Amino acid sequence: MNQRAKTYRKLHDIPEEWGTAVNVQAMVFGNMGNDCATGVAFTRNPSNGAKDFYGEFLVNAQGEDVVAGIRTPQELTIKARKSHGSDLPSLEEVMPSIFRELETVRHQLENHYRDMQDIEFTIQQGKLYMLQTRTGKRTAHAALQIAVDMANEGLISKSQALMRLKPDLIDQLLHPTLDPKAKKTVIAKGLPASPGAAAGKVVFSADEAVTRSENGDKVILVRIETSPDDIHGLHAAEGVLTTRGGMTSHAAVVARGMGRPCVAGAGEVKVNYSSASFEVGDVVVREGQLITIDGVTGQVMLGEVPTVPPQLSGAFGTIMSWADEFRSMQVRANAETPADARQAKEFGCEGIGLVRTEHMFFEGGRIVAMRQMILASDKTDRQAALDKLLAMQREDITELFQIMDGLPVTVRLLDPPLHEFIPHTEAEMGLVAKAAGVPLDRVRRRASELQEANPMLGHRGCRLAITYPEICEMQARAIFEAAAEVGRSAKKTPVAEVMVPLVSTLEELVQLKKVIEATAQQVQKEQGVNFTYRVGTMVELPRAALQAGRLAEQAEFFSFGTNDLTQTTYGLSRDDAGAFLPEYKAKGIVEQDPFVSLDQ
Amino acid sequence: MNQRAKTYRKLHDIPEEWGTAVNVQAMVFGNMGNDCATGVAFTRNPSNGAKDFYGEFLVNAQGEDVVAGIRTPQELTIKARKSHGSDLPSLEEVMPSIFRELETVRHQLENHYRDMQDIEFTIQQGKLYMLQTRTGKRTAHAALQIAVDMANEGLISKSQALMRLKPDLIDQLLHPTLDPKAKKTVIAKGLPASPGAAAGKVVFSADEAVTRSENGDKVILVRIETSPDDIHGLHAAEGVLTTRGGMTSHAAVVARGMGRPCVAGAGEVKVNYSSASFEVGDVVVREGQLITIDGVTGQVMLGEVPTVPPQLSGAFGTIMSWADEFRSMQVRANAETPADARQAKEFGCEGIGLVRTEHMFFEGGRIVAMRQMILASDKTDRQAALDKLLAMQREDITELFQIMDGLPVTVRLLDPPLHEFIPHTEAEMGLVAKAAGVPLDRVRRRASELQEANPMLGHRGCRLAITYPEICEMQARAIFEAAAEVGRSAKKTPVAEVMVPLVSTLEELVQLKKVIEATAQQVQKEQGVNFTYRVGTMVELPRAALQAGRLAEQAEFFSFGTNDLTQTTYGLSRDDAGAFLPEYKAKGIVEQDPFVSLDQ
Repeated sequence: MNQRAKTYRKLHDIPEEWGTAVNVQAMVFGNMGNDCATGVAFTRNPSNGAKDFYGEFLVNAQGEDVVAGIRTPQELTIKARKSHGSDLPSLEEVMPSIFRELETVRHQLENHYRDMQDIEFTIQQGKLYMLQTRTGKRTAHAALQIAVDMANEGLISKSQALMRLKPDLIDQLLHPTLDPKAKKTVIAKGLPASPGAAAGKVVFSADEAVTRSENGDKVILVRIETSPDDIHGLHAAEGVLTTRGGMTSHAAVVARGMGRPCVAGAGEVKVNYSSASFEVGDVVVREGQLITIDGVTGQVMLGEVPTVPPQLSGAFGTIMSWADEFRSMQVRANAETPADARQAKEFGCEGIGLVRTEHMFFEGGRIVAMRQMILASDKTDRQAALDKLLAMQREDITELFQIMDGLPVTVRLLDPPLHEFIPHTEAEMGLVAKAAGVPLDRVRRRASELQEANPMLGHRGCRLAITYPEICEMQARAIFEAAAEVGRSAKKTPVAEVMVPLVSTLEELVQLKKVIEATAQQVQKEQGVNFTYRVGTMVELPRAALQAGRLAEQAEFFSFGTNDLTQTTYGLSRDDAGAFLPEYKAKGIVEQDPFVSLDQ
Repeated sequence: MNQRAKTYRKLHDIPEEWGTAVNVQAMVFGNMGNDCATGVAFTRNPSNGAKDFYGEFLVNAQGEDVVAGIRTPQELTIKARKSHGSDLPSLEEVMPSIFRELETVRHQLENHYRDMQDIEFTIQQGKLYMLQTRTGKRTAHAALQIAVDMANEGLISKSQALMRLKPDLIDQLLHPTLDPKAKKTVIAKGLPASPGAAAGKVVFSADEAVTRSENGDKVILVRIETSPDDIHGLHAAEGVLTTRGGMTSHAAVVARGMGRPCVAGAGEVKVNYSSASFEVGDVVVREGQLITIDGVTGQVMLGEVPTVPPQLSGAFGTIMSWADEFRSMQVRANAETPADARQAKEFGCEGIGLVRTEHMFFEGGRIVAMRQMILASDKTDRQAALDKLLAMQREDITELFQIMDGLPVTVRLLDPPLHEFIPHTEAEMGLVAKAAGVPLDRVRRRASELQEANPMLGHRGCRLAITYPEICEMQARAIFEAAAEVGRSAKKTPVAEVMVPLVSTLEELVQLKKVIEATAQQVQKEQGVNFTYRVGTMVELPRAALQAGRLAEQAEFFSFGTNDLTQTTYGLSRDDAGAFLPEYKAKGIVEQDPFVSLDQ
């Protein structure tokens, strides 16, 4: 076996000891004269899925001549010849009876394999020989079209059509893709972390992304890694490129949530924030230069490569309606912003399964109120800040209830550790001190107090609600006041679900449920409006999973936080695993990134 | 109920709704003349446990007069009067028949309750009345003596004697304690993190601790918190005081391991490294001033308070031999240093259950070689550093095998993340660069590369052995060469157990076991000596616990890493839990620190 065969076998997990099969067969010749020819064909168009016979041939030639590209091949059909404006006659014209025979074979093969075929044929002195047939590769659009058409033709069932479309293919269809005809100068490759292609001017900070995008520029945010502080920048950018982190890094998760293309962990790209530039080998790209990223392949390209917008054509709608016939699972959205909620509603979501309230606290003036709350030296100060937050949070959630129009909305209580809201550089701390109206020294002290050795396992989730019950009360009140307000005017009663995060012990849930229920009853009394509410929790720690039976006595619903559950079950930090996980895969210790696959 | 009653009930978990019992009974008077008296007594000496009737009385007085301390009370026995050199006659002399009656009661009560009693009595006009009896409080030494004596007297069984001695009492007996008669100026209180009392001059750095102790000073190391970098200082100090961290903080764990007293998390103590002083309220203590710490009470005292050395008297030996009769569990030591191993052997350990190899890499020249290994730019450089470490590690382990003399020694492969070996301040990095002979920039870059968001869940444990198999090989070789060397000369064959830490998936163990076994066979071949070895793992991640059945097919032994297991099961960082765990206890969410108690 040559190296290529070995590599191929390795890639496809075929052991070497299986040996090699050898077929012995008579050869046919397409190059014995002008009554000979050879060609390749797809039984349908592999580019757009149209039910056209698609391919090329050469008279008096062998297969390699077609591939080599020395002679210009001819089209198979008159239709194709005309549409390509070719001067050379088609097979349909040159050898009409052979063409009809080939057409028959085309239908036979499709009927037999019930899928689009990629075939090779040779004509030797007026006789057609089929050399090979295999299922043909196709674009995402073609795959969709072919699956729907074949089901409509009765070749396959609707459920077969559905099963042929892998989830990531559907994802690709929802995003702009690179124009396949465009030229590309690929300078680096990272992980394909969020699908879609985007072009824009390079910026290196979230603030710069916002400023430039407000001036009408399209920008690509390039960061070593991103944090919740960068949310506004991720939102303003067309796409994100990071040099660290994997498929489940902050940038990747947020970008997917926002539908922004993302290339993550492009290690060759060396970002230099101080000179506002990045290097890849000899190439230096400065702030403001155009690049294009492709979140499907992970490629990073110089300049602007044209893209094709997503076409949610008829076939897409058809396949979605078939999916609805078969599925047994309901689908809810992850959404915090009205824009996301509206889009999810358009896509047919059956409610919001997760509103991460902390995302509401990072934007604009909110982070100031949040920081005032964190920096408050006593309960009175904290309450003043909480009152400001209450108004903002109520407004946000009101809008979500309105958009969801009677569908359930699950709001998760504050989850991240408080230090995520406080900056860590002196300059930024100075700004915070000024904005929050407290001495710089208090900001510094509080930041140092809140610092944690392992924030993932720290003072976060419901632990915040336990130690600061006033935050829990404020959030519950915001949710229920919003539900009451919407309930008063809307036709459909809002359904408010309050999710207590990071529960590890029943008593946490018991105590917080009391606070939440008391608040609900108070709001119902104050406002004289009824609304439906439920209190549940997220199972995201091994102990919660092990005690799920007991938690279920108190929780009215469960969510699974598979990310944190994977982190704690494996003792594996999502942010740090990049240092060894690639080697773990290469050595066969894990088959797949544990954050991507379900454990057995 | 008054506040005191309420607090008492709260402390002892007695619900308020149980109400209060009221006893109605006739009163007797000890103050009706000189044929009256009142007194308190212990049936044995509560201070040293001697079988002496111990107590005091006053003629013509009520109980409160004894307690009030206005009149000087008289002794009960002639023996006690003589030994205290008292002029006042004893009860034995003043009221001989009453005394004999009281002696009879003393024996009756001990025979009935089968424990030392604390009694109150009154004599009214020549008649003895018993007011109260209860089991008497006693010192650790007295508890031990009384338990052994009562078993020898046949009052209780040996197993009852054993069960009366709580583990922390045994721990106290092994350490110096404060002289109960000494005066104390308590300035602060922290957590009683490691038992024993110690006095010494305050130092604020590990290096200073070493320097001063080499000059013959006794020192107390005072730190905000300690890290593995401080090991040499912890070792040089008489005791440790930290202002952050709990019962399972680094300082507490290491101090307990070393048998050093430790007061941890004394939050009132504000350490200022730059001025080499600490403050508690108005008190300022500077480097070199004397303080005393008590790891049993958590007290911090000014000046040197005299201590009493541990007395492992006959009773201690007796109780230990009884424990050996009953116990079904074997006991092995945690030990890395020859001194610790020797002490453990003296205490009767049945092997070493955990040698943390990383502790061997922090001392003296070793950290330089370790850093060279980490900073190596290629395999050749790394191998050169590893060769140096091999020699050191082999030497250490050889000594442990020699000391253990045929008892098994479990050596855990390198566990902490590599960044723990690299300093993080510029100045220290400069020193490292110089010592390791590499450019400062490489140290800086490597330190930043190795930095982790959640080191507890990061690139550590067997993940290091997988990504740097040469480290695993070096360690296995050191262990087996040591075993071979000792096996050649010693009468008893050394038993080497190699422990693979932080396993989350079977394949990690499979691959590393191959490396370790191959190394063992190679060493046996090279040296022509046989030794017994086993390869096992530590179950310290939820996934390992859940997959223990499968791991057991490969592991020849298991250890339980309850600290990491608690951290990951609860999603609770030991270093950060201090911020909310006290409130969790106060609110009854957890009954005990999860790191101290076993989960149900």
